Amino acid sequence: MTKLWGGRFSKNTDALVEEFNSSISFDWRLYKQDILGSIAHATMLSKCNIITEEDRDLIIKGLKEILAEIENNSFEFKVSLEDIHLNIEKVLTDKIGQAGGRLHTARSRNDQVALDTHMYLKEEIKEVSNLILSMQEAIIEVCNKYPKTIMPGYTHLQRAQPILFSHHLLAYFFMLERDFRRFKGAFESADIMPLGAGALAGTTYPIDRHMVADELKFSRVYENSLDAVSDRDYILEFMSAASILMMHLSRISEEIILWCSSEFSFVELDDAHATGSSIMPQKKNPDIPELVRGKTGRVFGHLIALLTVTKGLPLAYNKDLQEDKEGLFDTIDTIKFSLAVYKEILLGMKVNEVRMRAVLRDDFSNATDMADYLVKKGMPFRQAHEVAGKCVAYCIAEKKALLDLSLEEFKSFSELFSEDVLEAMQIETCVDKRNSFGGTGSSQVQKTLQIAAGIISKEKETVSVYKAKTHF
Amino acid sequence: MTKLWGGRFSKNTDALVEEFNSSISFDWRLYKQDILGSIAHATMLSKCNIITEEDRDLIIKGLKEILAEIENNSFEFKVSLEDIHLNIEKVLTDKIGQAGGRLHTARSRNDQVALDTHMYLKEEIKEVSNLILSMQEAIIEVCNKYPKTIMPGYTHLQRAQPILFSHHLLAYFFMLERDFRRFKGAFESADIMPLGAGALAGTTYPIDRHMVADELKFSRVYENSLDAVSDRDYILEFMSAASILMMHLSRISEEIILWCSSEFSFVELDDAHATGSSIMPQKKNPDIPELVRGKTGRVFGHLIALLTVTKGLPLAYNKDLQEDKEGLFDTIDTIKFSLAVYKEILLGMKVNEVRMRAVLRDDFSNATDMADYLVKKGMPFRQAHEVAGKCVAYCIAEKKALLDLSLEEFKSFSELFSEDVLEAMQIETCVDKRNSFGGTGSSQVQKTLQIAAGIISKEKETVSVYKAKTHF
Amino acid sequence: MTKLWGGRFSKNTDALVEEFNSSISFDWRLYKQDILGSIAHATMLSKCNIITEEDRDLIIKGLKEILAEIENNSFEFKVSLEDIHLNIEKVLTDKIGQAGGRLHTARSRNDQVALDTHMYLKEEIKEVSNLILSMQEAIIEVCNKYPKTIMPGYTHLQRAQPILFSHHLLAYFFMLERDFRRFKGAFESADIMPLGAGALAGTTYPIDRHMVADELKFSRVYENSLDAVSDRDYILEFMSAASILMMHLSRISEEIILWCSSEFSFVELDDAHATGSSIMPQKKNPDIPELVRGKTGRVFGHLIALLTVTKGLPLAYNKDLQEDKEGLFDTIDTIKFSLAVYKEILLGMKVNEVRMRAVLRDDFSNATDMADYLVKKGMPFRQAHEVAGKCVAYCIAEKKALLDLSLEEFKSFSELFSEDVLEAMQIETCVDKRNSFGGTGSSQVQKTLQIAAGIISKEKETVSVYKAKTHF
Amino acid sequence: MTKLWGGRFSKNTDALVEEFNSSISFDWRLYKQDILGSIAHATMLSKCNIITEEDRDLIIKGLKEILAEIENNSFEFKVSLEDIHLNIEKVLTDKIGQAGGRLHTARSRNDQVALDTHMYLKEEIKEVSNLILSMQEAIIEVCNKYPKTIMPGYTHLQRAQPILFSHHLLAYFFMLERDFRRFKGAFESADIMPLGAGALAGTTYPIDRHMVADELKFSRVYENSLDAVSDRDYILEFMSAASILMMHLSRISEEIILWCSSEFSFVELDDAHATGSSIMPQKKNPDIPELVRGKTGRVFGHLIALLTVTKGLPLAYNKDLQEDKEGLFDTIDTIKFSLAVYKEILLGMKVNEVRMRAVLRDDFSNATDMADYLVKKGMPFRQAHEVAGKCVAYCIAEKKALLDLSLEEFKSFSELFSEDVLEAMQIETCVDKRNSFGGTGSSQVQKTLQIAAGIISKEKETVSVYKAKTHF
Repeated sequence: MTKLWGGRFSKNTDALVEEFNSSISFDWRLYKQDILGSIAHATMLSKCNIITEEDRDLIIKGLKEILAEIENNSFEFKVSLEDIHLNIEKVLTDKIGQAGGRLHTARSRNDQVALDTHMYLKEEIKEVSNLILSMQEAIIEVCNKYPKTIMPGYTHLQRAQPILFSHHLLAYFFMLERDFRRFKGAFESADIMPLGAGALAGTTYPIDRHMVADELKFSRVYENSLDAVSDRDYILEFMSAASILMMHLSRISEEIILWCSSEFSFVELDDAHATGSSIMPQKKNPDIPELVRGKTGRVFGHLIALLTVTKGLPLAYNKDLQEDKEGLFDTIDTIKFSLAVYKEILLGMKVNEVRMRAVLRDDFSNATDMADYLVKKGMPFRQAHEVAGKCVAYCIAEKKALLDLSLEEFKSFSELFSEDVLEAMQIETCVDKRNSFGGTGSSQVQKTLQIAAGIISKEKETVSVYKAKTHF
Repeated sequence: MTKLWGGRFSKNTDALVEEFNSSISFDWRLYKQDILGSIAHATMLSKCNIITEEDRDLIIKGLKEILAEIENNSFEFKVSLEDIHLNIEKVLTDKIGQAGGRLHTARSRNDQVALDTHMYLKEEIKEVSNLILSMQEAIIEVCNKYPKTIMPGYTHLQRAQPILFSHHLLAYFFMLERDFRRFKGAFESADIMPLGAGALAGTTYPIDRHMVADELKFSRVYENSLDAVSDRDYILEFMSAASILMMHLSRISEEIILWCSSEFSFVELDDAHATGSSIMPQKKNPDIPELVRGKTGRVFGHLIALLTVTKGLPLAYNKDLQEDKEGLFDTIDTIKFSLAVYKEILLGMKVNEVRMRAVLRDDFSNATDMADYLVKKGMPFRQAHEVAGKCVAYCIAEKKALLDLSLEEFKSFSELFSEDVLEAMQIETCVDKRNSFGGTGSSQVQKTLQIAAGIISKEKETVSVYKAKTHF
Repeated sequence: MTKLWGGRFSKNTDALVEEFNSSISFDWRLYKQDILGSIAHATMLSKCNIITEEDRDLIIKGLKEILAEIENNSFEFKVSLEDIHLNIEKVLTDKIGQAGGRLHTARSRNDQVALDTHMYLKEEIKEVSNLILSMQEAIIEVCNKYPKTIMPGYTHLQRAQPILFSHHLLAYFFMLERDFRRFKGAFESADIMPLGAGALAGTTYPIDRHMVADELKFSRVYENSLDAVSDRDYILEFMSAASILMMHLSRISEEIILWCSSEFSFVELDDAHATGSSIMPQKKNPDIPELVRGKTGRVFGHLIALLTVTKGLPLAYNKDLQEDKEGLFDTIDTIKFSLAVYKEILLGMKVNEVRMRAVLRDDFSNATDMADYLVKKGMPFRQAHEVAGKCVAYCIAEKKALLDLSLEEFKSFSELFSEDVLEAMQIETCVDKRNSFGGTGSSQVQKTLQIAAGIISKEKETVSVYKAKTHF
Repeated sequence: MTKLWGGRFSKNTDALVEEFNSSISFDWRLYKQDILGSIAHATMLSKCNIITEEDRDLIIKGLKEILAEIENNSFEFKVSLEDIHLNIEKVLTDKIGQAGGRLHTARSRNDQVALDTHMYLKEEIKEVSNLILSMQEAIIEVCNKYPKTIMPGYTHLQRAQPILFSHHLLAYFFMLERDFRRFKGAFESADIMPLGAGALAGTTYPIDRHMVADELKFSRVYENSLDAVSDRDYILEFMSAASILMMHLSRISEEIILWCSSEFSFVELDDAHATGSSIMPQKKNPDIPELVRGKTGRVFGHLIALLTVTKGLPLAYNKDLQEDKEGLFDTIDTIKFSLAVYKEILLGMKVNEVRMRAVLRDDFSNATDMADYLVKKGMPFRQAHEVAGKCVAYCIAEKKALLDLSLEEFKSFSELFSEDVLEAMQIETCVDKRNSFGGTGSSQVQKTLQIAAGIISKEKETVSVYKAKTHF
């Protein structure tokens, strides 16, 4: 079949190249944006007297028919027509004749595909933000479900100090808050309207780009046409934010996988998020957290892929930039899945409070409190730390917990110990005394939950703004 | 020598491990932040009655002495003391005795190193932002130097349409604007105060973290102690922004390298930014743009390195996180160098206006304007595009430029051509008629330069805010 | 529907998780390997008296039917059956009853999927190696087409010294030779048979793994069962080789894109490998080289993705490892396309010999030869280099080429110049005198072409070995 | 000071650029290779009558003096002299006058730096290979120390089947074997001699490159001069191998970190490889495994950095390629450290055999054996798997281990159970019955240890070959 740009070529591209060169297999996803963008463009062209109102009406009617056909699966996409833009334009021209040929006046595929992708990404950031919000709400719900549950806090995967389980979970709440904010940055970068940049230099037609921007709910218009067609920052910024988000989810995944092990036994996943083994009947594998952890790789990979693509490209558009979409779409799918499933995982998992508390009895995670106890009695910190270290060494040798020591034994390490030491070293005390702002003491955690509620409210406002700036 | 944490260990770490484990070879860079942070911590401890005023005064006096010693190179850093924190603390304790041991009350190296790095990065973002600003100002200066210079605009590295040289350069201005904004996001992420998180869970001492935050000019305090010690988002966000920035600089580098080639001959670099060959005397190599393009690699590498480090790490602190600094420091050095040198390159390069204009005479970058001409005479765009394609093919066969065609020849392709076609296709006309918002028409470029000036003003305000939130 | 491993679970996984968890959408590609592996496994089980010959025959018959159904598109893959293994096993069991249930004796999905992927990759390395060979042959063909064509050789994209066009192309021949060798390494890593490792620990059945290896044409059997199921080195090694290959192709792409520009005008692509513009009728864009250069990004991305996935994974199998396939498949597709299309590009492109030679007349790429001339007359190299530099500077100031200088002018720079200098600096002389081994002198290039022919022969032998070790 | 290539430049490069452009701060590492290479070059030049024997002797004497000065720290490297080559050449010329200027005859910095780096990398691959060997020997030593120790084998971090501890460790032996082989590939890629390629095109002097190759112990000479100066495959191949190696070390690190946790308590590190906490006296942190796991990031980062640098570079040398060294050097340091320390970690760690065995008593990692038991009694595998699953579910509900069940209870699940079931499910039996090739049965593990010994022998031969092909 004839290529729309086939004027000066004497030979058909062969099939291999056609497939390689074509993007319709993935950019069909942009069909709604492409049609909406074309309607806005046609409307503006007519308002600016570049095309007639009749042509405009024909174009809009044709495009709406095509939209309906795509949505009810009666539209046939063709690889030979390369991309979503030419697929739609060809059918439109078949439908309405010459008027269809006028739709491409004062625009180029370079600015058209940029427009579609900007619009698409804005929609998706809205979705992603909503999913972050839902996961944050799930965290709060789980925190409220286990308000007094104590677990060991770890550094270097060694038990360090006892903490509230809810305090631990809230760390992820704040990571997600930063993720939310980073996607907001990406939204701002996507919320700039490229149409009207033409192929690279703007256009000679008396168009009104701000009219199109308003119609399509953009906040800003690209001030430089070369930048408009060659900018992929908004995608890279989205992918950077997605990479950091997935890093966060890989961390909670690692923890849940640890917690599901026999050795930890801190949580049990809902059957929906674990699977069995084809050969070992006793297994209950935390597949979903493992998958999320594994899928972190592809998101990092997509980021580095697009950075590589754009590195060293001269202005303005180069075909390399067609490589921006598949990685973007897969990143979107991956993070949406991961966020959605994590909400379910958190709400579905059972926390083994008894086990968490039991392990604390016999370890030494209250050793810091012993040191702090001595400091409060007047010993310099570094010396207190050393005394506590010796007590621990003694207990290990004697196979005792710190709470098993007699006052005499305590006093053999320092005369500053007196009877209140046992109280000071009770696990519950150790937790509750960490009452500094942001600490694990329960009154602090309550305060943090209130702060978290405030953050949720503000994020919801942001999502409302996104809704006002998107279409679907 | 005795390790400060050596209480329960019976054996010295061997030399290999000591070197591997130590970070002083790179984290000495944080000395100013470490000392400032310790002074603020001691001040707060005393205000909260955790240490005495005498101890506080001793500590501050000792720290200021150490600062002076470091700055006049009389301080000896020791690998055996692992890191900047222990190096300073050990010397402090040697100087002032037990009071030095009290400085570490209510803090841990985990929150201390986080504090130092946050403070350090805030300073550096201020510097980087200033350098972005300077490069943007250099761009504007060069634009004003060459207000009417026309060059070929390219897509696919094929000449596409004539554009103003200043229009081309301004594309980079807007990339840098987005870079500036991304670093602002990183600043916000860095501008959260971690001290008081302790090792991971907060502290039992009645500290006042907000007092420390005010003293150290932080806008916010980490609301969760686990998050405070394990968060590296602010570094990753910085590195993401740096990667995109370097991608932009790699693009302008590629262009300048192309322009310096004999084939393009569009610009000549100042001798300061080019070097000769050890074997080929005629060469003038654009080494500095090549280096910047090459250094893009290391910045991408550092980003992927830290993403890899943090992937799948359980909370809270793990030793892996020590790997956050070298890549960060090298990223900072690289982008500061690159921005600083690019300002010089731009201001120093000579633009060969005659050559740029000359090449446009004989190519076909005014072919779009022929198509547009026909459209304005009533032909549908797709058909006009085809006619123009045939004209070009004819010219190639006849070895003519479009402006060489006679009216008769024009008319042989379409009856719509009349005498005004030559005027419409003059290069200057082609540029100036692209007068849509953001287009290359000279009145539009003037408008864009005004917008750019407004952006510069706003960025300067942001830098002022940074100055108010940093120390040096 | 009932999951095959559903024994101890009381709840169905929900749809979201099912889709997330399932791999059939991509691992269906392994169907031939899966069936062949199962036939070999059943054959061995029967030879070792673990299943009966009747069961074996039923199994083989059933599997062959399934193979036929898949190949004529009458087999329905189900997402609910997770992966290719369970999809086939379920249908097999439906077909032949209990015997089907016996096929999974003494194996696990962990070693089964490893087997399939090893076999698949071996087939693909054979294909890739063949494509490398074809591209190398195309290079030699083009070299023979243009045996005497001279072009400027570049360093820093500055013209440096004149070289033979064929010499330039041959650089890529040797890159491809190293690529070929690296894929050979990956083949060796893939050519190890994992089946019989069971889930992780081997099996209690008296199986014969070497019999299976022979049947399936493997050279070696994994000596450690944990390694067998958790090893992904063979994929990573393939991806590393693919990344370096794509880096090479990105370099030749960059060059061809440059050469297609108006500024260089060194080559013209066949219409099949270039496309037009939707808006600029004069454009002939080197889309295919641009695409290949762009697709380099995704191959790097897939490598970093799998490195990320495998980083820090404890033994043995973890679900994360399911992430190994999509990136692998896409890498295979990308490099096969790229190699295949590059053969076509090279054979199809027209080289503009006249232009290449013309540009050399007036530049200074013979300046090194002037320096060498002086050295041969007795001047130390560094001094000769300086004299040549001054000559060049003089010519630039006077707008002359070196060959335009009079003997008098030459002598004003050094008394060592005499009449033979002009002959020594003729472009053809400059090329031919670079007659050191591997140099651009035409007798050397002829020698190199002979070496290349020898390499091709040896590579063909290697491909024969691959054929003996693969099935399709 | 005067630049050696300063002939045609009228202005000094400013300080910023000088530092940016200079590589002496890292390439000083190549001094031995640079001097050795220059000696070989001078020797050849004289043998080929390009320089006199007197000049050769002066050059060699001068270079040997410089070598001695560098090694006793009396040589002053200067940033203004850019790189190791010019630093040495300048001092040589100061020492011996004009003869020094003749050393650079028939070579360029482009082929000189390539030569140095090839030689350097060959030396380092020898070292790395030796360290891999040592770590493999340490693994065998530890295996022999704990020949009968049983531990749980894991998939998905869930206990799956009991295995021998030595079997687990041996998985790493075979990963290292593949690593060894990959570095052998990198050695072959490095073992090609570039000198004589000149700047890019070869040289007009009658040099003998094979003589230089023999002198410098290279197996092969680059057949194409452009390839010789622009090839960085050998570095990329080394970095790819290093990335996979570090991935392996990150896996064993993750495992050791898990095993050191209170929850696992499988091993205890020697005090030399763990450190204490500045605030929590009871901690014994597995810092060194954490560091190795963390340092995986930088090695991946360096790989992606150099891939990025080389992507899209036109031939031949470009300044970007100077970016190849820092990442390479850091990669070398990192993997040498990591391998060396891992040998120590393995030999130093105490394995808690009692604990490993104890945990197996009460879990269900013998459930597969119950299913296998039923299969051997005639039940199809899939059905046996289901029965075993129900037994496990019953035990969990009843808080029993499988070995606690009475025969009656067993029979309630299947009539096929008889008294021998308890014997079949003893942990030791479960391990020993996995007697398939490569399985965990102790006779198999003994066989594997013999195979391992054979591999060690062959690797030692390879290292001997390396020694014959290197100098130090």
